[in-house]
Amino acid sequence: MTRTIGVTEVVLRDAHQSLIAIRMAMEDMVGACEDIDQAGYWSVECWGGATYDACIRYLNEDPWERLRTFRKLMPNSRLQMLLRGQNLLGYRHYEDMVVDKFVEKSAENGMDVFRVFDALNDPRNMARAMAAVKKTGKHAQGTICYTISPLHTTEGYIKLAGQLLDMGAQSIALKDMAALLQPQPAYDIVKGIKDTYGDVQVNVHCHATTGVTLVSLMKAIEAGADVVDTSISSMSLGPGHNPTESLVAMLQGTEYTTNLDPERLVRIRDHFAAVRPKYKAFESATLVDTDIFSSQIPGGMLSNMESQLKQQGAGDRIKEVMEEVPLVKADAGHPPLVTPSSQIVGSQAVFNVLMGRYKVMTGEFADLMLGYYGECIGERNPEVVEIARQQAKKEPITVRPAELLKPEWGALVEATEKLEGNDGSDEDVLTYAMFPSVAPGFFKTRDEGPKNVGKTPEQMTAEKDAATGASKAVTGPITYKVSLGGRDHSVTVERA
Amino acid sequence: MTRTIGVTEVVLRDAHQSLIAIRMAMEDMVGACEDIDQAGYWSVECWGGATYDACIRYLNEDPWERLRTFRKLMPNSRLQMLLRGQNLLGYRHYEDMVVDKFVEKSAENGMDVFRVFDALNDPRNMARAMAAVKKTGKHAQGTICYTISPLHTTEGYIKLAGQLLDMGAQSIALKDMAALLQPQPAYDIVKGIKDTYGDVQVNVHCHATTGVTLVSLMKAIEAGADVVDTSISSMSLGPGHNPTESLVAMLQGTEYTTNLDPERLVRIRDHFAAVRPKYKAFESATLVDTDIFSSQIPGGMLSNMESQLKQQGAGDRIKEVMEEVPLVKADAGHPPLVTPSSQIVGSQAVFNVLMGRYKVMTGEFADLMLGYYGECIGERNPEVVEIARQQAKKEPITVRPAELLKPEWGALVEATEKLEGNDGSDEDVLTYAMFPSVAPGFFKTRDEGPKNVGKTPEQMTAEKDAATGASKAVTGPITYKVSLGGRDHSVTVERA
Repeated sequence: MTRTIGVTEVVLRDAHQSLIAIRMAMEDMVGACEDIDQAGYWSVECWGGATYDACIRYLNEDPWERLRTFRKLMPNSRLQMLLRGQNLLGYRHYEDMVVDKFVEKSAENGMDVFRVFDALNDPRNMARAMAAVKKTGKHAQGTICYTISPLHTTEGYIKLAGQLLDMGAQSIALKDMAALLQPQPAYDIVKGIKDTYGDVQVNVHCHATTGVTLVSLMKAIEAGADVVDTSISSMSLGPGHNPTESLVAMLQGTEYTTNLDPERLVRIRDHFAAVRPKYKAFESATLVDTDIFSSQIPGGMLSNMESQLKQQGAGDRIKEVMEEVPLVKADAGHPPLVTPSSQIVGSQAVFNVLMGRYKVMTGEFADLMLGYYGECIGERNPEVVEIARQQAKKEPITVRPAELLKPEWGALVEATEKLEGNDGSDEDVLTYAMFPSVAPGFFKTRDEGPKNVGKTPEQMTAEKDAATGASKAVTGPITYKVSLGGRDHSVTVERA
Repeated sequence: MTRTIGVTEVVLRDAHQSLIAIRMAMEDMVGACEDIDQAGYWSVECWGGATYDACIRYLNEDPWERLRTFRKLMPNSRLQMLLRGQNLLGYRHYEDMVVDKFVEKSAENGMDVFRVFDALNDPRNMARAMAAVKKTGKHAQGTICYTISPLHTTEGYIKLAGQLLDMGAQSIALKDMAALLQPQPAYDIVKGIKDTYGDVQVNVHCHATTGVTLVSLMKAIEAGADVVDTSISSMSLGPGHNPTESLVAMLQGTEYTTNLDPERLVRIRDHFAAVRPKYKAFESATLVDTDIFSSQIPGGMLSNMESQLKQQGAGDRIKEVMEEVPLVKADAGHPPLVTPSSQIVGSQAVFNVLMGRYKVMTGEFADLMLGYYGECIGERNPEVVEIARQQAKKEPITVRPAELLKPEWGALVEATEKLEGNDGSDEDVLTYAMFPSVAPGFFKTRDEGPKNVGKTPEQMTAEKDAATGASKAVTGPITYKVSLGGRDHSVTVERA
């Protein structure tokens, strides 16, 4: 009676996003693809907003070409991506036809599994993307962003899973981006979903930051979870994910198994163990951090707020800001703190401390209060909504935000066609649509081919030497021939 | 119905032994002692063989003074040590009276809990030390060294626990020095001990190397474990231990709790987060390593064998040696691979590969085969026993090895009294007894006081600059005044 647990390998997307600032170049991944393809994973996560952004911003790589290469190199695997619902891979809502187009093109270029989420857990922001995925015949996965608040309950998450299933989700992902998911709620939520909705596939995605979430995966599996996300050990832990090999070892001897090929795992591990040092400059320093359980503030959000405060010469007021965050969060109806809500709430908390509560409101926070990002689990504080209305001179909305958008595909095509280096494809239009400030530069330089920002040890030594002058440093006496008045003298110079 | 799980904090002993080569100086620990004392731990592990050794070998610190200082600074805590049974803290068997003396003195200087183990799991090697502990009225903890072999079974471990209880153990420690203890056996062994022997206290000690053992602690707790070992997060993971704070988070919301004071934990964490960088030069590079599940060879043993091979110019034969290890281990009756059996088996495997199987036998391996280290779980290969008998010109024994030792305390006192700088105490005799090659040097220099081998960032920068000449490097043209034939010339020198 052994049950096989599926594994989603995240090394090609979330692992390097979390550990080395999304900088891994395609050429450092291709060598592992055959082994990944053959290892027996349920799916291979390899694409998403940040990797797309990094491709065009830092690596001069066409993200669509990356996707097609993955498709070619991993013909036997389900390729998986993370999709921000109506935001696609960008930072605003897109009109429905752009959403359709993006999903269609992604499927056409090789994507199989679309993990669709919304930062506020508003199902209306996921609906169109899910419908689009279903139209392509690919796998639509509905996502619960896990957070902790006085309003978030196991029952609430179970209800949300039901809403996603009603929308046609073929599986439910429980997504724990802040490593907040403790073993007991992991068990309760998965068990609740299984008990309520029958044999629906449940995937669990946890980060490792707090050091506790491999236990959460164990409890989720005991509760019936079908697929869990891990990353090969040489690209794991810290703000990344639990090691794939540790998951395998965890299940040995139990009534669960993974069916992963251990020899392939060793090869994948060795590949990335060799690659990772090249990206040392981008490494996160965090090893384990459990502060979030008391502060409820994700590490990345905290450092953002700290740097905002420092820019204002108020670095010493971080404690006040940390106390302000829960209040702002409550006023906004308890959004999960994940991009972009974490930045929006964090910036407003900083403003409140520096200038008085809601004396100045950011445009984004006003939008959040007025419903332009969608609905949160809780009611928004009506007094703060009123301030937002006055400051932003906009009315609150209750409809699905994307309803208010006018068709924009035509305009996006037109704008893209004017850009030097655009290749006339829909894919380029989508790149421009999602990253309008970065795409023009990328189109111009695309012909130069991918840049690898990783550095070999030799390159690092050479650069360091150049910076310090070390390799050329004078360390002993040097004798010069000095010609003076037509006569040659031997002059020896040494340090005093 | 919440059950409180006790926690043993290992940061003062095993954590820095595993992570920074045992180098932490007492002065870098004292600042955390009050918080550790007040945090609510079941016990504080703070003393053992390697820390004792490091005190006199590297730090010019009297290990007994360290113990007394801990006692003074942590008046409310159970202080705990790791004791190698009849080996005490040394590498050979000591005659019973020396064992008695050591335990008596340790208790007198403040030790409360003695975790007594034997590398071969031979209860006879633990009996005298356990009896000595009981005579002092302190807590005698009997230890099971966990390993994996064709002969090691859950039933065998449960039986061993019974033997330890028969010897008067007040609790049983399940000690997993190689991070081999997977969740299912952790559950089965603890459950078996509880089911068989009733309400005996079970402590579980795991390293984190394989990334899976926090789950094992969870399953052990579910099976009834009473106390588990962890280390504060800033000195955790890798070859060290699971983070204390992650354990706390793991149990929140379950039917278990730790009762640890979260604010104290933050302070302890911050203390060691500040201290750790000083010991960067001694840091282990391992983050997670699951190879041991297939190789069954602990990481430290592997690197030892590699360096032995390299010294013989045979670095390319490591694979053969790795294949030889299980055979040698089987011939020896499947000893757990932990100090000293890991070194003994490893060296013999190297010899076998380089010179032919058992053509040359190390003295230690011959002793192991002839019973001088005690009994293993399995029968020893009689053919190899015979080779050992011939090469070592010694007869096999079946009695408890220490039975054959003559009283030695008098001679040890006499030898110690001749050493310059000895203070005439029994403690000094014990130091000499356990570390005869290191103690004389330490007694001589003890008056100079403790040395801290950690380095502040300023010290590190200064040393690096001195080594590379960086701060003094000539980077631009320099003008010298050169006196030549009584006339001063200005000579400018710059790089070609």
